[in-house]
This record gives sequence, C-alpha cells and structure tokens, in this order.
Amino acid sequence: MPSRFAHTPAPPYYAVIFANQRTPGDAGYEAMASAMAELALGQPGCLGLESTRDAAGFGITVSYWLDEASIRAWRDNAEHAVARARGRSTWYEHFELRIARVERAYGGP
Amino acid sequence: MPSRFAHTPAPPYYAVIFANQRTPGDAGYEAMASAMAELALGQPGCLGLESTRDAAGFGITVSYWLDEASIRAWRDNAEHAVARARGRSTWYEHFELRIARVERAYGGP
Repeated sequence: MPSRFAHTPAPPYYAVIFANQRTPGDAGYEAMASAMAELALGQPGCLGLESTRDAAGFGITVSYWLDEASIRAWRDNAEHAVARARGRSTWYEHFELRIARVERAYGGP
Repeated sequence: MPSRFAHTPAPPYYAVIFANQRTPGDAGYEAMASAMAELALGQPGCLGLESTRDAAGFGITVSYWLDEASIRAWRDNAEHAVARARGRSTWYEHFELRIARVERAYGGP
C-alpha cells in the first residue's frame, strides 16, 4: 500500500477531518506543517494521517486516533496549541474541523 | 465561507472519507468525477462534499450524509456503481474508504 495512506486498524477508531483554505504565501507554514505532522504521529493513540492540498491552496488532512482521549491530549499539546494560534492568525483563510467515529472501512482496488 | 467547504448542519451526521491515489493520465476521470460530484450532491440526504488533490495525484474527498440509509442509497445508485467499477479498473492505484459518524464540528478562524 502506498505510504501516503494511513495504516489504520479495524474500526472503531476516530478521525479528525480538517478542511482548510490557505492564505497566499508560505509565512513559515510548510515547516510548521511538517513539524506538526511528525509530532502528531508520535502522540500516544495516533494511528496515522492522510493529507493533500491543491494548487489553489485548498487542503484536507485527516488524522486517525485510537479514542477521544488521545484527540483531547493532542489538542492540549502545547506546541500544537501554538501552531493552531498561528493557523488562525496567519495561515488559514478558513477551516472546518470535524471529529468523527469511524465505523466501517475498506480499501481497494 | 468559501464555497469549497460543505455547509453541514449541527452533528450528528455521517462522513464518507475517500483517500485515493490516481493512476497517471486522465482516461475520462475528470469528466466522470465532476458528474459524480453533481449526482451525489443531488441525492437525498447528501449534505455536501469537500475535495482536493495534489500534483502527485493524491486526493481526498469527504462527502457528508444525513444518515447511513442515504449512504447506502448512494452506494446502490446505478451510475455511481458504474463509476466505481471504472475507478477500480482504471483510475485508482489505491484507495481507502472510511465511513464515520461526525460527533463534533467547528469552523474558523
């Protein structure tokens, strides 16, 4: 399976769906995004993430988590909180975040 | 709110998270993808969708649905079934599909 897919266990588990429109320019975004992805993947309960963005700056990142407690712990991570504040002030024109419980999953072809 | 975001109601509702890697070349994909997005958005219970793909062909589409019955009805749509078969045979190197119940949501900045 190509490495950009998350290797998640059998459901149930949780997904954080983060859809976002970037502002123009980098302004430190790419470095922080890489650091945050690495940090997230090292958190207890993080099962993986999938992320993509088109040339117009519209991105979707889905991170997968064992349970709601691990999502709360990641929300409360201090470095992540700093990055989120910068996201609100600088990097994101708009975002929508949804927390969902994955109930069924399959891959293909 | 920019139009690429889905205007979803207060949770709970459902999300179908479709992460996929395209094969090289178009092979009719773009036309079918547009037609399927329009068809999905016209289905009973479809609440919207968000979709993006990067230059390497890695895409994520999340469609939002009122309930599991509306997801099943979309799965059973005949035109959608034809498109899925073509996806498996031609358009997707790999995909992961996850069905999840959205429990919390917020937007920003």
